[in-house]
Amino acid sequence: MRFDAISVIPEVFSGYVGASILGRAQARGVFTFHAHDLRTWTHDRHRTVDDAPFGGGQGMLMKPEPIFEAIEAVQAMDETAAHVVFFSPCGAPFTQRTAERLAHMERIIFMCGRYEGMDERVYRLADEVISLGDYVLTGGELAALAVTDATVRLLPGALGDEQSAQDESFSDGLLEYAQYTRPATFRDEQVPEVLLSGDHGAIARWRRQSALRRTAAFRPDLLTNAALTDEERRYVDELLDGSEQAGEV
Amino acid sequence: MRFDAISVIPEVFSGYVGASILGRAQARGVFTFHAHDLRTWTHDRHRTVDDAPFGGGQGMLMKPEPIFEAIEAVQAMDETAAHVVFFSPCGAPFTQRTAERLAHMERIIFMCGRYEGMDERVYRLADEVISLGDYVLTGGELAALAVTDATVRLLPGALGDEQSAQDESFSDGLLEYAQYTRPATFRDEQVPEVLLSGDHGAIARWRRQSALRRTAAFRPDLLTNAALTDEERRYVDELLDGSEQAGEV
Repeated sequence: MRFDAISVIPEVFSGYVGASILGRAQARGVFTFHAHDLRTWTHDRHRTVDDAPFGGGQGMLMKPEPIFEAIEAVQAMDETAAHVVFFSPCGAPFTQRTAERLAHMERIIFMCGRYEGMDERVYRLADEVISLGDYVLTGGELAALAVTDATVRLLPGALGDEQSAQDESFSDGLLEYAQYTRPATFRDEQVPEVLLSGDHGAIARWRRQSALRRTAAFRPDLLTNAALTDEERRYVDELLDGSEQAGEV
Repeated sequence: MRFDAISVIPEVFSGYVGASILGRAQARGVFTFHAHDLRTWTHDRHRTVDDAPFGGGQGMLMKPEPIFEAIEAVQAMDETAAHVVFFSPCGAPFTQRTAERLAHMERIIFMCGRYEGMDERVYRLADEVISLGDYVLTGGELAALAVTDATVRLLPGALGDEQSAQDESFSDGLLEYAQYTRPATFRDEQVPEVLLSGDHGAIARWRRQSALRRTAAFRPDLLTNAALTDEERRYVDELLDGSEQAGEV
């Protein structure tokens, strides 16, 4: 899979996409990441990418011309047509479902804005507008990195362990169960005994209930769309009614 | 304001926090950012930070001992007590309100997990657990950067223009209005004429309506808690009923 990012600070991407899991996945040829300096597509001596807003107001906006030229030029760098992603609080909230869908694309171009925002006319270049969450960042670069990270780790061969993207939060609509490693007792706190029992059936049941308890406690909104058995549905209804103490989640 | 981040890849932070707006804010003394290698607080030759999960399963978990030691040691590096933030899908969703609250802190420590997750017992060290959104990242590093970015830009002196963090998406519970800059006509698309009129009252009214239209179109859920006049409430109700065409948003 190929990613391109267009930004006025193209130097900020390589440190992250070259490290750790993403770095190893790149080395194995799972994906490539190409950062491009938006100022390449300016034509004045100051390489201007921003201008004052019409109608007045604080701050500067990104001008439309360099963005149109940049996306057209970057599209032409590979014969595979790219899915063009912009970032904006007006976009659709990014979720694990979005990452699963994007993981089937062959190529994505991220347009990363900075300053007060972008001239509204540039959004017609977007195949998709994504919001990373209900907060304001100084630019789209961290959003591009987060979408790349969440997407790449779903690609075959990206994680060392093929299974490890399948059994985690959101993969089945629930938060993940609580996990423990050695030592069995640490600072007077012990891991739940069932996890030491070697009884795989009991462990699987405990983990499923842990996932249900945690989701009911922290993100009950997720339960609406989770695939639960009738028995599990009764269990979470009891948790939510408070008729059973949630206890350790 | 002082930020500390504990991570097994501490080298990934400096590229971003040293660039652009954050880099200039750091140079002006608005904040400092200190990255720490979690492996500093291991005691074996291989500097082990992870181990297999009790009860079986794929992947590795972060062990509790180095995390406890790291947070205690990093806390002691400054006499100002730090607010300790962990990241997890079980955490409270990060919003602009969270950033506004964190911007009043003097010091924050981020504990960035990697691998399949962390031993559940480490969360008792957290003053706050944050979820960046409903997606799974390979680690907490991008979350720490996003929270730093959203928080720092609210600090006095962080943005070149003191006003520019006040008139934007979420600052009044709405998405921001559409913005335009030169040229007035670009590829046959013109900016709304009112923005060229010089009539500041008309421009302010258009912008408020633009914010209402965009919020009704893209994020109607935000309208529930937005502070609207009775007239504005009727306007958005009409938009939402579809009795008035939303038109250009």
